[in-house]
Amino acid sequence: MGQEMLGAKQKESSTYLKAYPLRALGDIDKVKEDLRNSSIVILRITPLAQKSVDELKRAVEELYQYAEGMGGDIARLGEERIVITPPNVKIWRALAQ
Amino acid sequence: MGQEMLGAKQKESSTYLKAYPLRALGDIDKVKEDLRNSSIVILRITPLAQKSVDELKRAVEELYQYAEGMGGDIARLGEERIVITPPNVKIWRALAQ
Repeated sequence: MGQEMLGAKQKESSTYLKAYPLRALGDIDKVKEDLRNSSIVILRITPLAQKSVDELKRAVEELYQYAEGMGGDIARLGEERIVITPPNVKIWRALAQ
Repeated sequence: MGQEMLGAKQKESSTYLKAYPLRALGDIDKVKEDLRNSSIVILRITPLAQKSVDELKRAVEELYQYAEGMGGDIARLGEERIVITPPNVKIWRALAQ
């Protein structure tokens, strides 16, 4: 119990921001795992978009629901990327971009 | 003292991720302020790049030194953006992007 709490504290004090591409629908399991480990994920979605727009739609929808379900956040970042955050990180939305 | 500690804890438990454009060299003061407040900043650098490549160079160099100096991290995100993190957030670098 004591060790678990220490582990949780260590994770919180060193959040990771990971940027990588989404190449296949199966890659979203890795994204979910990263979110569970409190990492922030910046996902370049163009590789999957070029392969299949339908699969991209499904992937984004599933990640949207997953992020919402865990109390995290998700937002588009230009044309090529989305950013997904764990519950402790909020995406601040500017009025003017 | 007790209030200060509570304030620090509250900030830590709700990190913000802010995405906004860099339009002028003067905008970096805002970036530095956000970093001091433990926010993660994703900066779209194209507006300043279109205005002056020299000013962009100076801005990125200054932000690089600032992030390094405070124990944070900075990385390029494609052609249009850079991401800068406060000390508690580490940028994870993939071997293959």
